[in-house]
Amino acid sequence: VSQLLKIGIAGLGSVGIATISCLQRQQEMLTARAGKRLELVAVSARDRERARGVDLSAYRWYDDPVALAQAEDLDVIIELIGGAEGKARATVTAALQRGTAVVTANKALLASHGLALAALTEQRQTPLLFEAAVAAGVPVIKTLREALTASRILSLRGIINGTCNDILSRMAVADCDFSAALHAAQAAGFAEADATQDIDGHDAAQKLSLLAMIAFGRKIDPAQIDRHGIRNLSRHDVIQAKRDGKIIRLVAAAQLKSDGVPQLRVAPEWLLPQDPLAQLQGPMNGLVIETELAGSLTLSGLGAGGDATATAVIADLVDLARNRHNLPFGMPVANLH
Amino acid sequence: VSQLLKIGIAGLGSVGIATISCLQRQQEMLTARAGKRLELVAVSARDRERARGVDLSAYRWYDDPVALAQAEDLDVIIELIGGAEGKARATVTAALQRGTAVVTANKALLASHGLALAALTEQRQTPLLFEAAVAAGVPVIKTLREALTASRILSLRGIINGTCNDILSRMAVADCDFSAALHAAQAAGFAEADATQDIDGHDAAQKLSLLAMIAFGRKIDPAQIDRHGIRNLSRHDVIQAKRDGKIIRLVAAAQLKSDGVPQLRVAPEWLLPQDPLAQLQGPMNGLVIETELAGSLTLSGLGAGGDATATAVIADLVDLARNRHNLPFGMPVANLH
Repeated sequence: VSQLLKIGIAGLGSVGIATISCLQRQQEMLTARAGKRLELVAVSARDRERARGVDLSAYRWYDDPVALAQAEDLDVIIELIGGAEGKARATVTAALQRGTAVVTANKALLASHGLALAALTEQRQTPLLFEAAVAAGVPVIKTLREALTASRILSLRGIINGTCNDILSRMAVADCDFSAALHAAQAAGFAEADATQDIDGHDAAQKLSLLAMIAFGRKIDPAQIDRHGIRNLSRHDVIQAKRDGKIIRLVAAAQLKSDGVPQLRVAPEWLLPQDPLAQLQGPMNGLVIETELAGSLTLSGLGAGGDATATAVIADLVDLARNRHNLPFGMPVANLH
Repeated sequence: VSQLLKIGIAGLGSVGIATISCLQRQQEMLTARAGKRLELVAVSARDRERARGVDLSAYRWYDDPVALAQAEDLDVIIELIGGAEGKARATVTAALQRGTAVVTANKALLASHGLALAALTEQRQTPLLFEAAVAAGVPVIKTLREALTASRILSLRGIINGTCNDILSRMAVADCDFSAALHAAQAAGFAEADATQDIDGHDAAQKLSLLAMIAFGRKIDPAQIDRHGIRNLSRHDVIQAKRDGKIIRLVAAAQLKSDGVPQLRVAPEWLLPQDPLAQLQGPMNGLVIETELAGSLTLSGLGAGGDATATAVIADLVDLARNRHNLPFGMPVANLH
């Protein structure tokens, strides 16, 4: 058994930099927990010259992430490029083909190509971990996949898009319209310059499809999810909801029907204040899981941000170092209905 | 690799029977998730003749759980006898000595002898899993030990004794005194005939010590915890709290001090209604975890009951079948301060 886990990181945005910073600062604690030194060896990004606030001089540099994924001395590639296609998909595929484990936060890639990638992980016996893909540091995937294996899951109901929750929180608190709240969220770093994926509900639908595949053991196409965004909510809607004692939130929900098929939906909902999801403010995420045997479980916490997401990335590295693998969807692809 | 995980269960109370019932009913789903058939082979309890509502005829019977633990054909013993000493301790020790994995729900045993047992698991390279020891099906141990490995934990604050929470909920809702609420909780199956361990805070202190050892990587003696029970709370206290807009709950808390030593306390607290712990009614449990990098996480759900606790027991079996081991306290005993 090697005493090192040799790591390559593809993509040096806020999550990548937070991951590097954490690996640099917490070396001793992480070695005790992982049983191996988590050793960052190489990195890749588009622009080598950009100032990123961490010292990268000790790491091998690759302009091409696919070349990083094909490096012969790495045990694991962390893919933080993002997007369902292009370099992200090529990098993850190349690593798994080689037998190099992959940790990723890329929900778009997994929602579109998760089944094919899961089949590849089985064929190559190479782990693919993605706790960071949903709800940042809140372990929703680990909980569904490992803690609730004994019980049928009856429904999921969650706030899993921090951007929309931040915008809706701002509209209610600051009494402003959608575009002002969007701009404020962008200025605060909780929304990207192009927020389409978030505000139209695509991001929540992608994440919901992953959670539902794990929870219900079924193949789910995110494009088939009944999806409504928050773009058309007006200041008037929020004021009227307040008057009615309600709070508007973008809710992602999956409910098992009597035929065993889950029904999935992403849409704004008018919640009562005592609803656990109504109390989540700003970039908080939360998930309520109804089970057959263990009752109702609720998990909530910070659903966005570099440090919180890096926490999930590094938890996956420690699991990998300790050989705590899992199949991507908790069971072989052949068992998914 | 064997395609069976051969199981023995010691202790056939409500959790043991719920575990057997779940193993019998969910065989197909569990095999897909575990990659092996979870095969119950043998059971042990004091009274063979007692009617238990499940068919035990297919399983080998042992009057002595230590003999069960020494059986040569078992991969794992589930210890559900309870208590820090006596047969429970002897059974767990015998199994680990033999190299047979152990799954247990026994917080008293772990709080008193966890360090010695953890040393034994390291020496014998034999897993000891105990998700069911705290908060039933709510994966608080897995979250602290595996999901938050990257971040220093700053504090824990939780409701981790369902009996006390049920009694305090009843006192507030039914406007009754402590002994009437205790009797009602006993009648509802949420308090044992001898509820001393619960109402004097011993049970919560044991659970808190386990959570704090994992969260802070420190050795903690539950006998040293500042501990106050709920026995002396009167109907008047509850009425007065209501008048003040407060809700009384038994809170278990651990806070990291500037010298790196956690300060632990179990005591009734007068909570504001918006406190996430104040909203937990009846046998619900909840834990708020403050972290350095991932913000504040909250987990809540049913903290008691046979089915909910069996969910955690079986999750440990599936982890074991998939070789997702961990060290009991997340790092070697030698690394605990």
